[in-house]
Amino acid sequence: MIKIAVDAMGGDYAPKEQIEGAMKAVKDISDIEITLYGDENIIKSYLTDDTNIHIVHTDSVIDMGEKDPIRAIRSNRNSSMAKSLSSVRAKENDAVVSSGATQALIAGAHILVGRMKQFKRTAIAPVLPTTDRGQFILLDSGANLEIKPEFMVQQAYFASIYAQEVLGIAQPKVGLINIGTEEGKGRTLDQEAAALFKANKHINFIGNVEPKSILNPPADVMISDGFTANIVMKTIEGTAKGMSTMLKQELSRGVFGKLGLLLSIKNLKRLKKRMAPDEIGGAMIYGLKGVVIKAQGASKANGFYNGIKQAAHVVRQDVIGKVTAIIETEAKQDAQ
Amino acid sequence: MIKIAVDAMGGDYAPKEQIEGAMKAVKDISDIEITLYGDENIIKSYLTDDTNIHIVHTDSVIDMGEKDPIRAIRSNRNSSMAKSLSSVRAKENDAVVSSGATQALIAGAHILVGRMKQFKRTAIAPVLPTTDRGQFILLDSGANLEIKPEFMVQQAYFASIYAQEVLGIAQPKVGLINIGTEEGKGRTLDQEAAALFKANKHINFIGNVEPKSILNPPADVMISDGFTANIVMKTIEGTAKGMSTMLKQELSRGVFGKLGLLLSIKNLKRLKKRMAPDEIGGAMIYGLKGVVIKAQGASKANGFYNGIKQAAHVVRQDVIGKVTAIIETEAKQDAQ
Repeated sequence: MIKIAVDAMGGDYAPKEQIEGAMKAVKDISDIEITLYGDENIIKSYLTDDTNIHIVHTDSVIDMGEKDPIRAIRSNRNSSMAKSLSSVRAKENDAVVSSGATQALIAGAHILVGRMKQFKRTAIAPVLPTTDRGQFILLDSGANLEIKPEFMVQQAYFASIYAQEVLGIAQPKVGLINIGTEEGKGRTLDQEAAALFKANKHINFIGNVEPKSILNPPADVMISDGFTANIVMKTIEGTAKGMSTMLKQELSRGVFGKLGLLLSIKNLKRLKKRMAPDEIGGAMIYGLKGVVIKAQGASKANGFYNGIKQAAHVVRQDVIGKVTAIIETEAKQDAQ
Repeated sequence: MIKIAVDAMGGDYAPKEQIEGAMKAVKDISDIEITLYGDENIIKSYLTDDTNIHIVHTDSVIDMGEKDPIRAIRSNRNSSMAKSLSSVRAKENDAVVSSGATQALIAGAHILVGRMKQFKRTAIAPVLPTTDRGQFILLDSGANLEIKPEFMVQQAYFASIYAQEVLGIAQPKVGLINIGTEEGKGRTLDQEAAALFKANKHINFIGNVEPKSILNPPADVMISDGFTANIVMKTIEGTAKGMSTMLKQELSRGVFGKLGLLLSIKNLKRLKKRMAPDEIGGAMIYGLKGVVIKAQGASKANGFYNGIKQAAHVVRQDVIGKVTAIIETEAKQDAQ
């Protein structure tokens, strides 16, 4: 059985949606069991079926609006987030899923799960929808604001293996997020990263990709430093929100418009759903000794269920073992 | 009369749309006259009314698909772009409008118009639509990929004066594009820039702004380095395109959906128009001795007309004179 720790208390709709997501997961996925970390009394009031679900009581929570989330996770080892992370290092669980505060989760994962040997900089990598085909990985979405290009290479290995094993893409293409497609474009960092990617046999590098095609990119993995990729993610979110507002404003103009809007309402909801947190998979933290999945803060039961499913899949496919094998081979070659 | 040089040959639909835009401009705006730079014979075949329009013949063009646009403008001083830029330095014209290749125009403007004294790094600043109020300035959208924070301060002065004089905003708010709103967020560059903006009496700084609100930002000027702001601009473009695709895909599903789509088609066209190059104003190059406006490459007559109108307005309001006054006062204070 794959054992998954769930931080039941983190997220905008915790613990209700987290618990519902967990109950759905154990029903649908036969090889998992779940341990919920959080306030036992509160959890019990929502847990209507405890088949394959355990509870570990914790008496505090890392607040979503925490001003200093890194300090909070450091000083609060008895929180649901800290306890669930620690359970992975203690081998009590194979993976953690949390929709708690991102920066606290990244910092907590570093301290309590630990970094993979030889992996220099952890990254956080959400999986986003495309318009015309499956999904793509956007990294690093905010773990390392400033980074050396050689560390991006390790992150690209991880993303490639993830895309292969979890998203089922045979030869995942890697694209560097840049302001132009020509070789040599971008900052010094981008030029150096592109050269390293190009020369590396483990990476199927297709070159620079402009975010003009961000919702239908020619690559399965879109990579940049943590500042840039986070800005890309937030600009996608902002533009999608802005376009929805404009759409509503325009569609409700005039009699034909209003009638059309009425008829289209079901389809428009489907559009909204495609861009909603529940449909967008959780983000994995790359470079740890264990599997840590960050489900979106606004996840409802279905989104959280998807996060659990994703975590189980990553464990089942031994993504961490496969990445470790490449990193260690590389390290040996470098040492020679 | 305000004299405007028009690069008639640059742009996806040149020279037809450029010439039509120019004819419309001299009709609508009473205090301007225009000189078209380009192939005289070709221009004459489109120019149906030459009231207040002159032609200067040039026999070459900087190609839009030019692989090395900077070299092209350097080596081709007889191109329509180079000649129109030179005419500003020679005081034959007050402003240039071109929808030619951006990098060529920036490089050409540097060489042929010249940088404003004391202004360290030129920037390019498009004006974008918001969902709920007027417009906002996004800078630097690609001139300086790597920059010192003190040079961003000068760009913020320019944008503030532009917003005041051209967009008519009384006390323009400046926001730093960042991955979080809290003080101290971001890279070293962002932290330093934020501190400088905050301490500066010429800048109405509202702090860090996440691009989650990019189409309805709380600031009138959204600023970052040239790499980041260019990535933001291209991500807006990519997301808008992707959302339109998804919208079409979803709206055309089912009988009600198709019927709704049919009724909504006029309104959807209006939405498309709101995000189209013709509606989005031209981008001004900040920090030059003259007024240089880059109209979008895909501009049609109306978009190009807007660029000319914008150029005239910048000249009329003496934006460059006002920025120069601030920069020189600052330079004197620094010297003391």
